[in-house]
Amino acid sequence: MSSHDSAPVVVTGGAGAVGSYLVRELLARGSTVRVIDNLSSGRREHLPSLSGEPRLSLTVADVREPASYAEKFRGASAVWHLAANTDIRLGSADPRVDFDHGTFATFEALETARRHDVPRFLFTSSSVVYGYPSVLPTPEDYGPLLPESFYGAAKLAAEGMCSAFAHAYGIRAYLFRFANIIGPGMTHGVIYDFFEKLRQDPARLEVLGDGNQSKSYLRTEDCVEGMLVAADRTSDPVNVFNLGTHDRITAREIAEKVVAAHGGRARIEYTGGSRGWPGDVPVQLLAVDKLERLGWHPRFSSAAAVDRTIEETVRARDAAR
Amino acid sequence: MSSHDSAPVVVTGGAGAVGSYLVRELLARGSTVRVIDNLSSGRREHLPSLSGEPRLSLTVADVREPASYAEKFRGASAVWHLAANTDIRLGSADPRVDFDHGTFATFEALETARRHDVPRFLFTSSSVVYGYPSVLPTPEDYGPLLPESFYGAAKLAAEGMCSAFAHAYGIRAYLFRFANIIGPGMTHGVIYDFFEKLRQDPARLEVLGDGNQSKSYLRTEDCVEGMLVAADRTSDPVNVFNLGTHDRITAREIAEKVVAAHGGRARIEYTGGSRGWPGDVPVQLLAVDKLERLGWHPRFSSAAAVDRTIEETVRARDAAR
Repeated sequence: MSSHDSAPVVVTGGAGAVGSYLVRELLARGSTVRVIDNLSSGRREHLPSLSGEPRLSLTVADVREPASYAEKFRGASAVWHLAANTDIRLGSADPRVDFDHGTFATFEALETARRHDVPRFLFTSSSVVYGYPSVLPTPEDYGPLLPESFYGAAKLAAEGMCSAFAHAYGIRAYLFRFANIIGPGMTHGVIYDFFEKLRQDPARLEVLGDGNQSKSYLRTEDCVEGMLVAADRTSDPVNVFNLGTHDRITAREIAEKVVAAHGGRARIEYTGGSRGWPGDVPVQLLAVDKLERLGWHPRFSSAAAVDRTIEETVRARDAAR
Repeated sequence: MSSHDSAPVVVTGGAGAVGSYLVRELLARGSTVRVIDNLSSGRREHLPSLSGEPRLSLTVADVREPASYAEKFRGASAVWHLAANTDIRLGSADPRVDFDHGTFATFEALETARRHDVPRFLFTSSSVVYGYPSVLPTPEDYGPLLPESFYGAAKLAAEGMCSAFAHAYGIRAYLFRFANIIGPGMTHGVIYDFFEKLRQDPARLEVLGDGNQSKSYLRTEDCVEGMLVAADRTSDPVNVFNLGTHDRITAREIAEKVVAAHGGRARIEYTGGSRGWPGDVPVQLLAVDKLERLGWHPRFSSAAAVDRTIEETVRARDAAR
């Protein structure tokens, strides 16, 4: 695939925060884009106006039910599979959530892609496939892969299936292992959660864990650009890429930044323990030199990505008042 | 768990070639053993007589349907989950076979173990999680894990789920990555296939691929002993062990040994190509020093394991005449 070719591309989860940004980029490159989204966490309003953009369509469907969307795979040059349970913590309460919406849904998406001879399948995986890594920054060939969350287990399962489909049917697979992705339109994640908590109680901000969790945060635009660079410039049977920044930032620093942006009055309270929740991996920093060798570089550091996302959140909140 | 404790243990796939050997060893160590097997490839006659062995029970049930066997998990000190599609090549024809009988079945087994507070879950994985490894012998921390078969994808998915359940619920997980296991009672695999082909046409033996596929073969008794040693002597949250021999043997050598044992008249014909079938990984040799440091050593080399298995097959065939 060149991202510039004229055959339609499918984006599952295309109404989500990352998906809708990807959709806009694909449209800007001239692609016809078919979005499949069950709108469970995606939002119709994240997408450009369907009446104003004839090359864009939205099918409201669940990836677990191919009968409701399979025709959209016909003639597609690529399937970008982003749809998933987006909330890692939700999965810790019920393992079936990530099994159904991650593992099983990805199997159905792959089977549908195969039946329609779609030549490329691009999957958004996660750094959590590494479990608690003993090597930082963690390279793509790190092992063993022992995820600590059901979300991570589903991402690993999906990666393995992508690899098997690639080898069995010649589908070219791209596995993108994300750091924490932040940007506009998020409906989950640490910055979203912090603002949500302060909206409910402006006097205190509860931080899960001891605040020392230290992770890499990548802006949505850097993330999407990285995926497009990889899709344009590599074509192995299976292409695995980390996507992250070179730096980390702690939950404590993020909390302090959010409180400052919120007026500086809230008291920060830590629930304690090194992990924010069962299955939380408190350290995360990905080696990104593989993708950088293709010419991609993140424009925002983790600190800058957090700052920008906080600014946007404050602006959006003020605009909504 | 000590393998000697008195609480019952569950063995799924316990009527299979490896499972039934494990069942006998567990009984010999004093355990009460509850076998769950759908008898799709397992055989009732592999097990000791149920009337003669009051500590053994067999529930004919499919692991995908917990309602039909869940009560057997009650009070168990361990679940050994061996049930799976045993024929890698079958999965290459329909990806759903390994998804259903591997990935989904393992999820249900883990969920059932969790609901019944079973403290240990021991899973038989495979060397095929390594895909086509660039390092031989391949160590447990090898990455990336990009399986080339649906069987391998299901094993990797199951490993990830075991790891997540271990971290979320404190279930202790054991992941055993098998070389090719051979011994009595097999209903699939290269030696079984070769004899089956010669039974149908004694004049020629078709070998899939060019015969240069070179893999490690471990005897059932060495395999089961290795698992029991690991279960007795380690207790990390997640315990990953390779199980194999220090040597390899080619498909060509095995074919020549089988033909010689069959009277030496058959012509060997190769279908060509480096792989026996789509998803076949033609080289396999596992680093086993991690398990050897616990005191286990394979008694049979690959060559000796093949010789013994051929002898047994000839004897069983002659006895059946």
